Amino acid sequence: MAPVQWVAAWVLLLSGCAARRTPVLPAFPRSDVRDCSSDPPYLPPTATNTSARLAALRATMRAHGAHAYIVPSTDAHMSEYVAERDARLGWVTGFTGSAGTGVVTQDKAALWTDSRYWTQAERQLDCNWELQRTTLVESIALWILEEVPVGGNVSLDPFLFSVGTWNSYSQALHGSGRTLLPVETNLVDQVWGDQRPPPASGEIYSLPAAFTGSSWQEKVAGIRQQMEEHVRHPTAVLLSALEETAWLFNLRGDDIPYNPVFYSYTLLTNTSISLFVDEGRLAAAAQQSLRADCPGPRCVELQGYDQARDHLRRYAQGNVTVWLGTEYTTYGLYGVIPQEKLLEDSYSPAMLAKAVKNAKEQELLRAAHVRDAVAVIQYLVWLEKTVPRGEVDEFSGAQRVDALRRAQEHSHGPSFQSISASGLNAALAHYSPSNGSSRQLSVDELYLSDTGGQYLDGTTDITRTVHWGVPTPLQKEAYTRVLMGNIDLSRLVFPPNTAGRVVESFARRALWEVGLNYGHGTGHGIGNFLSVHEWPVGFQSNNVPLAAGMFTSIEPGYYRDGEFGIRIEDIALVVEAQTEHQSAEEPFLTFEVVSLVPYDRNLIDLSLLSPEQIRYLNAHYETIRARVGPELRRQRLEEEYGWLQRSTEPFPLGSAAAAAGTPTLTALLAALLAALQA
Amino acid sequence: MAPVQWVAAWVLLLSGCAARRTPVLPAFPRSDVRDCSSDPPYLPPTATNTSARLAALRATMRAHGAHAYIVPSTDAHMSEYVAERDARLGWVTGFTGSAGTGVVTQDKAALWTDSRYWTQAERQLDCNWELQRTTLVESIALWILEEVPVGGNVSLDPFLFSVGTWNSYSQALHGSGRTLLPVETNLVDQVWGDQRPPPASGEIYSLPAAFTGSSWQEKVAGIRQQMEEHVRHPTAVLLSALEETAWLFNLRGDDIPYNPVFYSYTLLTNTSISLFVDEGRLAAAAQQSLRADCPGPRCVELQGYDQARDHLRRYAQGNVTVWLGTEYTTYGLYGVIPQEKLLEDSYSPAMLAKAVKNAKEQELLRAAHVRDAVAVIQYLVWLEKTVPRGEVDEFSGAQRVDALRRAQEHSHGPSFQSISASGLNAALAHYSPSNGSSRQLSVDELYLSDTGGQYLDGTTDITRTVHWGVPTPLQKEAYTRVLMGNIDLSRLVFPPNTAGRVVESFARRALWEVGLNYGHGTGHGIGNFLSVHEWPVGFQSNNVPLAAGMFTSIEPGYYRDGEFGIRIEDIALVVEAQTEHQSAEEPFLTFEVVSLVPYDRNLIDLSLLSPEQIRYLNAHYETIRARVGPELRRQRLEEEYGWLQRSTEPFPLGSAAAAAGTPTLTALLAALLAALQA
Repeated sequence: MAPVQWVAAWVLLLSGCAARRTPVLPAFPRSDVRDCSSDPPYLPPTATNTSARLAALRATMRAHGAHAYIVPSTDAHMSEYVAERDARLGWVTGFTGSAGTGVVTQDKAALWTDSRYWTQAERQLDCNWELQRTTLVESIALWILEEVPVGGNVSLDPFLFSVGTWNSYSQALHGSGRTLLPVETNLVDQVWGDQRPPPASGEIYSLPAAFTGSSWQEKVAGIRQQMEEHVRHPTAVLLSALEETAWLFNLRGDDIPYNPVFYSYTLLTNTSISLFVDEGRLAAAAQQSLRADCPGPRCVELQGYDQARDHLRRYAQGNVTVWLGTEYTTYGLYGVIPQEKLLEDSYSPAMLAKAVKNAKEQELLRAAHVRDAVAVIQYLVWLEKTVPRGEVDEFSGAQRVDALRRAQEHSHGPSFQSISASGLNAALAHYSPSNGSSRQLSVDELYLSDTGGQYLDGTTDITRTVHWGVPTPLQKEAYTRVLMGNIDLSRLVFPPNTAGRVVESFARRALWEVGLNYGHGTGHGIGNFLSVHEWPVGFQSNNVPLAAGMFTSIEPGYYRDGEFGIRIEDIALVVEAQTEHQSAEEPFLTFEVVSLVPYDRNLIDLSLLSPEQIRYLNAHYETIRARVGPELRRQRLEEEYGWLQRSTEPFPLGSAAAAAGTPTLTALLAALLAALQA
Repeated sequence: MAPVQWVAAWVLLLSGCAARRTPVLPAFPRSDVRDCSSDPPYLPPTATNTSARLAALRATMRAHGAHAYIVPSTDAHMSEYVAERDARLGWVTGFTGSAGTGVVTQDKAALWTDSRYWTQAERQLDCNWELQRTTLVESIALWILEEVPVGGNVSLDPFLFSVGTWNSYSQALHGSGRTLLPVETNLVDQVWGDQRPPPASGEIYSLPAAFTGSSWQEKVAGIRQQMEEHVRHPTAVLLSALEETAWLFNLRGDDIPYNPVFYSYTLLTNTSISLFVDEGRLAAAAQQSLRADCPGPRCVELQGYDQARDHLRRYAQGNVTVWLGTEYTTYGLYGVIPQEKLLEDSYSPAMLAKAVKNAKEQELLRAAHVRDAVAVIQYLVWLEKTVPRGEVDEFSGAQRVDALRRAQEHSHGPSFQSISASGLNAALAHYSPSNGSSRQLSVDELYLSDTGGQYLDGTTDITRTVHWGVPTPLQKEAYTRVLMGNIDLSRLVFPPNTAGRVVESFARRALWEVGLNYGHGTGHGIGNFLSVHEWPVGFQSNNVPLAAGMFTSIEPGYYRDGEFGIRIEDIALVVEAQTEHQSAEEPFLTFEVVSLVPYDRNLIDLSLLSPEQIRYLNAHYETIRARVGPELRRQRLEEEYGWLQRSTEPFPLGSAAAAAGTPTLTALLAALLAALQA
């Protein structure tokens, strides 16, 4: 899933890879976006009237002495996707994008979001809201400094902001005379009242052992060992992210769309395990698994989800040290632990352990990708037949690929809302069609499909861009250069402990060479039947160094506003490389691409590729044939099998080498031929 | 000059490019390094007996209640090179390397330094000192936690630590029960007493207008404009780095070896200019220039160097905001400004303005590099003749190249201590020979020369590695791959605002491909007759984004312990690129290499180079011929002119293309030839 702007848009700005593009605003009047400068203001039917909500919120703010109130898009666990109940920003603004920040004062209201969502925001916001086209905390703070007088309070719910984000706001307002004031009652919830959706109540279940890399007891032992070995000898690890607890206990739930997690916290100490969750929701087998070793240090004590904070406060009164991850632990929880009893890292040892998949987890993920490739290939074959007949639009296409995935073994539905974008819609980079407003697919336009599946054995995410007619020279060049970037990064050999940030430019170089670029990140981690965007792996500056056993997406792209969009995304596993020399103590690393769907031959300009790139592509295609071919046959998909064979024919090496520059040889050859003919 | 480990060694560790190499310790007993495990301990004659100094320092520490005392290698301006008077670490330890940190407790003493200096430290330390082979503040803090009891004071001189470094120590000791205690009296100075060298007294002079990019009044106006335009409207900028003041006023001095700067501070406010310097040292013309616009806002008020802090404290009592760079302003100065009156950035606007050279400054630097190339070419020609006769050693070689540079117009001597390393000595990466212990140059070994010059028009820095006999296959492959890295980064096209950190891997890829790497940074900024390592340009994580007009070194290498070392270093100017497409608002960037000395053909394996790399090399050689050839003739250096022509012959493209893979064409050609012969 892409583009990966979900992690800290400022990273992109700092790197110089920021999208500087202006939003798509065609010259002709359009009815799908608001126009607040007209008289009266024009609002499309997709906009939400927020006047009453804002008035109520402002009244509550006055009662709490808040001059500004900051509303984030996330929940108490810094989840990327949130349950309806936690969609406070969506409720108060009308904007339903997955990332954004709202700030309300008595006079004004503004929404900050990244370029993926600018058009969507113009469709959903009413004229109570300014749209700010950035997500920099510094920018939000500057706006606040303009709107809030010296001496004013800038309030927020400390249970919805990570320690890191709190510190950013705190630093930005430092010395300005405005106070950053935590208010423990959530003001939006107060206004939302009984209209707010109820808490999740679905079952929480154990993953069958066939789909887990190790038992939860083994995982607990591993983390306790890290605690023992740490120089500060922490006595406990606090797990705040929902994926951490789900991973640790091999439990899953359906509290959040697309992500099979459930609301919970865990406090794992050296002598006890406290799981904070609604006990009644645990399946019997799950309960049994958790209580198997009771009493004792491997007995899981169940406590209510709401008890986490009080329990932590009590625990922190003892002679203890609590280890936690500041990137996703909320300031509210963090605040109950005295400073000297904190061991702060960006990510907890559970998060880091989860990021490195063991051999069995790697095999599970590989297997999921084989079946996922079958579904995507079925989709591509179907498109080839039906698009020329004018029978597909973006929405029906998305429905089709979702259905094909669901038909595969171990499927648990899509891993995110399918992106299905034709023509200029793909230039939005993160566009999902809706039933009412969906563009018809055409042989005259590029089509971008970015989709993924949840399977019991793994989470997948793949983007393919295709053209069924005659692409323009620019489209073909851009596609080829995006592919070159994908290949260059995929085949890179690099030393152990290298940060993704320092190698992601290899995915951009072929585009840069001719003055092109893309405005989003290059990849993100991915889970075993967990999140499609899994912390902390990837190529951004807040990701941890790459290590063997990590999975990441590799997804360069190119977007031309109002015209087209291209992205080629694969999932790759970090593996040890075989190198001619061995200079480091540990072996160098490289990627093994586990996505197994060929690229569109119609869009590849072979003359741009180097012999090395072609060799790599041919080798990868051999792997695809070897792994997906048998599965297609097993599923009796003979048409798809034929398509796969055609689509993975080896590319000739000669043309690339000739294009790459052998004028002397070519000239000599021509002269010889002429001599022969004479 | 390289390797650029002077900026934050932790950067290298984080990037995974850290040198994991063990130090060079031959199996046989050696007399040049200490052996503290023998009984009695063995000390080489190069070691300094520090027992008395340490005893005196410990007594002073007790008097000040300091359980540990941290001694840095830098001065009050965070200078890389320091005057003898500021060489406190050298005096107390005996170690004279340019980077390190000492910590003394009542029982122990330890020195932390990076891999460049491990062998040197073993030669210079006595057995009072432990050597710690890292420079991580975290590592120093862990050692301190072991040695200082809870409740103890960890003391340091706040005028010798930057705000950034202070914060690192503060964070590392946070919550540990040890107090980081600033002691304004420098305890080493107390012990050093009247043996401490006196302050500098040499003349401070104005640069002739022919060698300046703009007048100091223009520079002042530019910074004042930035102050006005800044959203926080700072009223003053504090210039703490010696280069800042030297640059601003177009003044130079000789207080520090190799760097033409002088001890000073500047407080530039919106209405006044205070220069803190020993007035008596200013040349008459310099005084006149500074006082030309008096009275008024462009009148430079001269105050004593020692008055800076008191003046700043008084100034900060007003309704003011002081803008400063936390990377190099000391905690001591910073501390006199109330928090709410601070505007903190990593670098001051003066530092950032200095980093971008205007058209005239660029021309000056280019011109200096032409004459510098003449000196280096003379040296290479001389080596070619004299090395086979066994007449050169590392030290005499360094003396020769220094003398050749001095003979060039506008020369002001070397820009750093010449690195001249033969055979295994080059594996130390940062090795300077001394008169007594100097290896003879041989046709059987690689020789690495890393040298630079100060000229009135510019500072230079270049590394060439050469072999006059038959290099081993590994040496040839490694040299070629280092060259490929140099070329790949030099010819890279990248978007505006790109951080050096995210592109420096292009200089490593060719090495990585076969499992090789190097353990230092890839480049650093450089000045116009200023520092050879000029903040804040380069490829490290604390460098600012690359912008047109910046100069940086590009210097990949490869080092094989106990065997050989290779480095190829050029200076390059960031320039606008001509790209096929233009997608960004600003043009993309690339490098123009201004170092004009050809590489050693004897060490290049042409079959490894791509056609693009060969084309780049041939184009660069054309530039070298066009720019250096006429200057060689002007200086009547006909032998060198002939050498240059031979050394810059274009490389054939055919072999690379053939090696890169044109089996079809080659095969066809062979068949045709066979047919013709038949």
